[in-house]
Amino acid sequence: MNIQEIIETKRDKHKLSKQQIEYFVKNYTSGDITDYQASALIMAIYINGMDEEEITNLTLAMANSGDILDLSELGTVVDKHSTGGIGDKVTLILAPIIASLGIPVAKMSGRGLGYTGGTADKLESIPGYKVEVEEKEFIENVKKIGISLITQTSNLAPADKKIYALRDSINCVESIPLIASSIMSKKIASGANKIVLDVTCGSGAFMKTLEDAKKLAETMEKIGKLANRETIAVITDMNEPLGKTVGNTLEVIESIEALNGKMKKDVEEVVLLLGSNMMKLAGLGENIEENKNRIKENIRNGKALEKFRELVINQGGDISYIDNIEKFPKAKYIIPLVAEKSGVIESLDAEEVGKISVFLGAGRIKKEDDIQKEVGLVFEKKVGDNVNIGDILAYIHGNNEEKTKEAVEELKKIYEIR
Amino acid sequence: MNIQEIIETKRDKHKLSKQQIEYFVKNYTSGDITDYQASALIMAIYINGMDEEEITNLTLAMANSGDILDLSELGTVVDKHSTGGIGDKVTLILAPIIASLGIPVAKMSGRGLGYTGGTADKLESIPGYKVEVEEKEFIENVKKIGISLITQTSNLAPADKKIYALRDSINCVESIPLIASSIMSKKIASGANKIVLDVTCGSGAFMKTLEDAKKLAETMEKIGKLANRETIAVITDMNEPLGKTVGNTLEVIESIEALNGKMKKDVEEVVLLLGSNMMKLAGLGENIEENKNRIKENIRNGKALEKFRELVINQGGDISYIDNIEKFPKAKYIIPLVAEKSGVIESLDAEEVGKISVFLGAGRIKKEDDIQKEVGLVFEKKVGDNVNIGDILAYIHGNNEEKTKEAVEELKKIYEIR
Repeated sequence: MNIQEIIETKRDKHKLSKQQIEYFVKNYTSGDITDYQASALIMAIYINGMDEEEITNLTLAMANSGDILDLSELGTVVDKHSTGGIGDKVTLILAPIIASLGIPVAKMSGRGLGYTGGTADKLESIPGYKVEVEEKEFIENVKKIGISLITQTSNLAPADKKIYALRDSINCVESIPLIASSIMSKKIASGANKIVLDVTCGSGAFMKTLEDAKKLAETMEKIGKLANRETIAVITDMNEPLGKTVGNTLEVIESIEALNGKMKKDVEEVVLLLGSNMMKLAGLGENIEENKNRIKENIRNGKALEKFRELVINQGGDISYIDNIEKFPKAKYIIPLVAEKSGVIESLDAEEVGKISVFLGAGRIKKEDDIQKEVGLVFEKKVGDNVNIGDILAYIHGNNEEKTKEAVEELKKIYEIR
Repeated sequence: MNIQEIIETKRDKHKLSKQQIEYFVKNYTSGDITDYQASALIMAIYINGMDEEEITNLTLAMANSGDILDLSELGTVVDKHSTGGIGDKVTLILAPIIASLGIPVAKMSGRGLGYTGGTADKLESIPGYKVEVEEKEFIENVKKIGISLITQTSNLAPADKKIYALRDSINCVESIPLIASSIMSKKIASGANKIVLDVTCGSGAFMKTLEDAKKLAETMEKIGKLANRETIAVITDMNEPLGKTVGNTLEVIESIEALNGKMKKDVEEVVLLLGSNMMKLAGLGENIEENKNRIKENIRNGKALEKFRELVINQGGDISYIDNIEKFPKAKYIIPLVAEKSGVIESLDAEEVGKISVFLGAGRIKKEDDIQKEVGLVFEKKVGDNVNIGDILAYIHGNNEEKTKEAVEELKKIYEIR
């Protein structure tokens, strides 16, 4: 077998065998296949596609390219993953809810890149919270309090990292087989038995159309089945930012408020949808509506917030911030955006909001970039809301006066009022 | 403009603009675009194709990536090019014929790679013949005696060299837009005003089917027109080797015999077809049959051979070899292949013959390889010939006894007798 023959197979629209896929992943990871050869194959896959069996084999080969976390001593671990969005703080809220229901939560989250934030960065906004934890301690944490949220520390799916970086540099990111295998390989490597996937759809997501989102969702469910990891994929809207805030500290504050019972409607919908399906997979009940009610109940009775407090304490975080959100450091400049006309808000483009948050310093352009935890956006009005001239639409939180003002001007262009 | 946007354009089946193509060729040649980015674009071109305008722009951009030979002081120069074949010694025979008719021949030929031989290697089989000649001397030679055959010395179409090497390593050689632009860019860079192309078709050629050969021929004629270089492309058979011999010295000997009037029928057909069209392009006459007769006449009257002698003398070659072909060094072992059954020869696969010639040492696998000039094959019987048990089908000329015997066994498998 050689890479030329593998390239030729996909170039000519034929099906890659399991052996061919494994050969490619193994030898590209080791460096025996060059970037330019991998690049040709990736482009051929982008254009000519892959069937579910091929995608499953690619997923498993990438998962097996590094360490596979063994979480078997925790019983059934249900993981949750979102394909990315703006203002998506669902993991921060949902993870403690799930743990409060007695389902073990052992979750590794990435850092933010581009417009999409990362749960690990957000957690680090809580002073003292340690996201970098060794595997053994991670598992011990879950055994002790039923939950641990950390960043990836092991060598998980290195083939996926390498292939993803290449796809990014040759404009081959938006391919359903490649997105599906990338997500699923990381989930499998991080030890999940069962997976609930949030496939975001809209301007701020990879999938711009409902048709593509459905296709990705179906693909990942089928890969999950073929790879023996029961998977449920749901589709959620990402045309406007999720919830009231975008930015690391700001989203942590919103999450604490949500666990205190003040959850934005759009966030609640996603939390209930994903959470009820996670419960179903964990064997807590087939009735989705009943599951949703149990989630609401654990917010109402404070058990979810208490679990979040336990998590923060257990990971070394300063609990006084959770109990008094006023303690969180604020950005130097908080400038309101005021409505210059009356009407109904027709759109608030999520991708453009993401760009502003990166411009303010809330996100990274390159992996090595630093982020500013305090900066971001707080929305007072969102799509569907009525506004009058002079109403405050949003606040921009920035550390540089010029940039903050510029961000206000940019945001003004994005609010479409009719 | 950036390479990602260019990749995206072709990835999504859109047309590349002249500016995009020039940007790619310029920046890939300079190294500012990486191999893996070029690789993705090449694969997208391979799969999604290019229209004639795109191919012409690619051709001209590659031609302009290096030196362009200025042959204007020679008047109308008609170049000839073959897309490659086994036993193809047509240039050796045709070039002196054309020069003997008063049409200037200033031709640069490549060295052999893979199964396909190179005219430059063959010429070097003549002791003393200098194929590496500076541009100035090359033009002086043509002015003096009307002909010069050398190898590429200038920096001709370096973009094509780089792209070709990449195509080879990612299995993207057999693409009509890429083959057509590669050939035409080299022809344009080497100063031709008018071009006759021999598109070979069959097992020993790039184009395996008549349909593909026609498409390539039409594409190159159209590029020639768009690039303002009148071009005629003809299609010739390459299912069995051309002529009686394969191998460097052996083909030179066959060429001298051909110019002495002993030309094999299949070689003669190609020589007459290409030659008559070259005469047409040079303005010597529109009547193809009349042109063919003038070619035959110049062989009969010895003018063509005399021009070949002049060429050899002028380039430093030892003329005594031309006048007495028995002087040429012979391989150590000359072993006949004897027919083991009677019947008609149905096929003699050109590609397989090519492989045997490389195995014997007549060709290169890598550019750096040395070749053995004397080795090769001499066919006594070809497709359509009747044979009886015991007839000699061919002689294998080799320098290593084991290999020569092995080659006989291999050749036996290729002769299909029914």
